[in-house]
Amino acid sequence: MLEKLKQEVYQANLDLVRHGLVILTWGNVSAIDRETNLVVIKPSGVSYDSMKVEDMVVVDLDGNVVEGSLRPSSDTPTHIAIYKAFAEVGAVVHTHSTYATAWAQACREIPNLGTTHSDTFHHNVPCTDEMSAEQIVSAYEAETGTVIADAFKNINPMHTPAVLVAHHGPFTWGESAAKAVENAVILEEVARMTSITVALNPTVQMNENLIEKHYSRKHGANAYYGQIKK
Amino acid sequence: MLEKLKQEVYQANLDLVRHGLVILTWGNVSAIDRETNLVVIKPSGVSYDSMKVEDMVVVDLDGNVVEGSLRPSSDTPTHIAIYKAFAEVGAVVHTHSTYATAWAQACREIPNLGTTHSDTFHHNVPCTDEMSAEQIVSAYEAETGTVIADAFKNINPMHTPAVLVAHHGPFTWGESAAKAVENAVILEEVARMTSITVALNPTVQMNENLIEKHYSRKHGANAYYGQIKK
Amino acid sequence: MLEKLKQEVYQANLDLVRHGLVILTWGNVSAIDRETNLVVIKPSGVSYDSMKVEDMVVVDLDGNVVEGSLRPSSDTPTHIAIYKAFAEVGAVVHTHSTYATAWAQACREIPNLGTTHSDTFHHNVPCTDEMSAEQIVSAYEAETGTVIADAFKNINPMHTPAVLVAHHGPFTWGESAAKAVENAVILEEVARMTSITVALNPTVQMNENLIEKHYSRKHGANAYYGQIKK
Amino acid sequence: MLEKLKQEVYQANLDLVRHGLVILTWGNVSAIDRETNLVVIKPSGVSYDSMKVEDMVVVDLDGNVVEGSLRPSSDTPTHIAIYKAFAEVGAVVHTHSTYATAWAQACREIPNLGTTHSDTFHHNVPCTDEMSAEQIVSAYEAETGTVIADAFKNINPMHTPAVLVAHHGPFTWGESAAKAVENAVILEEVARMTSITVALNPTVQMNENLIEKHYSRKHGANAYYGQIKK
Repeated sequence: MLEKLKQEVYQANLDLVRHGLVILTWGNVSAIDRETNLVVIKPSGVSYDSMKVEDMVVVDLDGNVVEGSLRPSSDTPTHIAIYKAFAEVGAVVHTHSTYATAWAQACREIPNLGTTHSDTFHHNVPCTDEMSAEQIVSAYEAETGTVIADAFKNINPMHTPAVLVAHHGPFTWGESAAKAVENAVILEEVARMTSITVALNPTVQMNENLIEKHYSRKHGANAYYGQIKK
Repeated sequence: MLEKLKQEVYQANLDLVRHGLVILTWGNVSAIDRETNLVVIKPSGVSYDSMKVEDMVVVDLDGNVVEGSLRPSSDTPTHIAIYKAFAEVGAVVHTHSTYATAWAQACREIPNLGTTHSDTFHHNVPCTDEMSAEQIVSAYEAETGTVIADAFKNINPMHTPAVLVAHHGPFTWGESAAKAVENAVILEEVARMTSITVALNPTVQMNENLIEKHYSRKHGANAYYGQIKK
Repeated sequence: MLEKLKQEVYQANLDLVRHGLVILTWGNVSAIDRETNLVVIKPSGVSYDSMKVEDMVVVDLDGNVVEGSLRPSSDTPTHIAIYKAFAEVGAVVHTHSTYATAWAQACREIPNLGTTHSDTFHHNVPCTDEMSAEQIVSAYEAETGTVIADAFKNINPMHTPAVLVAHHGPFTWGESAAKAVENAVILEEVARMTSITVALNPTVQMNENLIEKHYSRKHGANAYYGQIKK
Repeated sequence: MLEKLKQEVYQANLDLVRHGLVILTWGNVSAIDRETNLVVIKPSGVSYDSMKVEDMVVVDLDGNVVEGSLRPSSDTPTHIAIYKAFAEVGAVVHTHSTYATAWAQACREIPNLGTTHSDTFHHNVPCTDEMSAEQIVSAYEAETGTVIADAFKNINPMHTPAVLVAHHGPFTWGESAAKAVENAVILEEVARMTSITVALNPTVQMNENLIEKHYSRKHGANAYYGQIKK
């Protein structure tokens, strides 16, 4: 069942380690098959060294395990909430990568201060509201998805495919597992670069025209970066 | 004598190097056999490259060498004091890892500002009081254990298995040598992440409910992170 | 056509990855043949892993592709503008290396605060003016070259072979592709070192005599660093 | 001539690269044979990749080349001045390692804020005075040795075997080339750790008793760290 997607999710989980975004078992990737509405996700707390393709767990959008002998990631309800809220998302990544997590812990959105940011993230990378006591004690992981969706009321999630959950860490997404991982790599680099930037100049701001220019060089009908796809 | 424990302590010492927590000879791991009250510990000032399993030194809780041809770590009395003060500890790690040591040198506890911290350390990671001149000149290493124990008067050492010794560096512990090393890895990452966080937002604080939620996801009767242990 | 130059440009692009200056496809190197006024440049958005020597694109100084089946780097007009403005430049490098980009995002020139800087860059490394809305929407990449040239009105570009484009990132150059890459390596290290310096002492300044001494040790008629070239 | 010393100096130069203390050709090691007063030193500006043992240059204490076909390091007069000023020094290392150089550029001594520092450097690591215009234009490299010697008027150079030359970078020394390199490794780690410490607590200070205790654990008649040397 969904063998190709399992392979992609498995590989994407290993790529998180390769890119230095996770230590120990601190990260997970999932991907959704939009035809069947089934989600393939990493098992909970399993070491990357010993993990195998067949350990990937298949769940439905109610969180029920459809296939797999292991428990799915404890963050599964957050992944599901993102798939429900953002219809074009094909895969979700969660890490505790150092700099993105530091911004999340500081409860600060990452301001768009350069073309490195604009090339991938159109908007500032938002930071969610802190969760209420009620949200935390009731259905914590699903409610994490709620505050993420709330943060995108005025932002297109496919143009800014990343969020910081306050006091927690980053989630990124994309059309595919590989793209969601790439966005996690870029987010961490942007978070690092921008933490150095604000130390050098705490009040700097960036011109809106330059943001538009760089985002549209790579995205949309008039994009001209890269090779023409055949 | 205690061959299995020696192997674990030897491996854990090498793992400190592998995880980038020690350079030169700046670190040591010990483990205790609670039945015999014997402690296996790294020899003092021996290079990790040339160290062998049989170089591990066995000492009793009075610090007497019971087996081994080399001198035990000069920090042995601190390890022993921790085993005496905290009855559930099975192994102790000491490093001078960069960020945890910087917090120790700054004489600041590491505030709990995120779920990465809460997942492993329930409380802020305490920093000991500075030692008095008398403590320093009398029995320095044993008194280091005293100020560590003092720092946990109101904190459960098994729920927050790490401490910063003021102007010195971190000690961590756990049920096993491998777990104590894992806690040292996590402490260094939390120290790094939190130093970036407080630069981005010096006054940020974290809600108590979120700390409780994350700690209890991984620890205690209602934990649901990871796989069910058989 | 220009096989030797293609090989040098190809190798220089790979060296950017080896030196840790680029991730993903974020960087490009070009070199010019001053006899034919043809420029060899990396193709746009091609992965470093799969890139081959024969993928290098040859363009003329009007930006027309003279040889090659792939699109040239989207930054080609900036490279061309640099070759036109600075007659002695043989090769150009563009990266988004972390610290140099952070200074660019902060819109701060890198002050010359030490001999590491003076050994390679005679002057402070300038940061361009921000581009006007008109410059951005008209011919963005060529206008990037314009603001670079403007930044060197009173600076010799061969004595300070690096610039920060405001809110974007660094460009470096040299007589050869290898030298331009070396300057990119040095710029990133100087940017890193100087960000730490200004955190430790925000108002420090350096004596002009020491700058002259170190620059002239390595450059000009009285240089005495290194071996005598035969 | 001095084959064993050449081998040690050659190896020590390569170790600077291995420890991440130098990039390109930015570093040099020398050692002295106190019986003949001959100094073995790295040749100037030679790549570490291509350097061979026989490239090491032998100079006398007047700076004359006694053996070797290459020019000695341009910093040779500074090394010689250190050998003349500090009679017990057997080897000298110069690097532009990132954090130590940042402190030098900031013109700040590195305060002794922890046991990591005290274990190797008894005193704060001093920063020299800035050189006068006359010193710079006359005999720059020899005068660098003068300001180093001046910085140790009230400090024992064998108990604090490191200095920061203002706006330039670190020099370290020891009885042997290997020891001088080890001190360069420790200096860089202490510089890094302490830059983080002062960001976390700009006014922290350390008790003199703790400094004495840690330094004397490892040095002098009552040292008890490490194994007994036979």
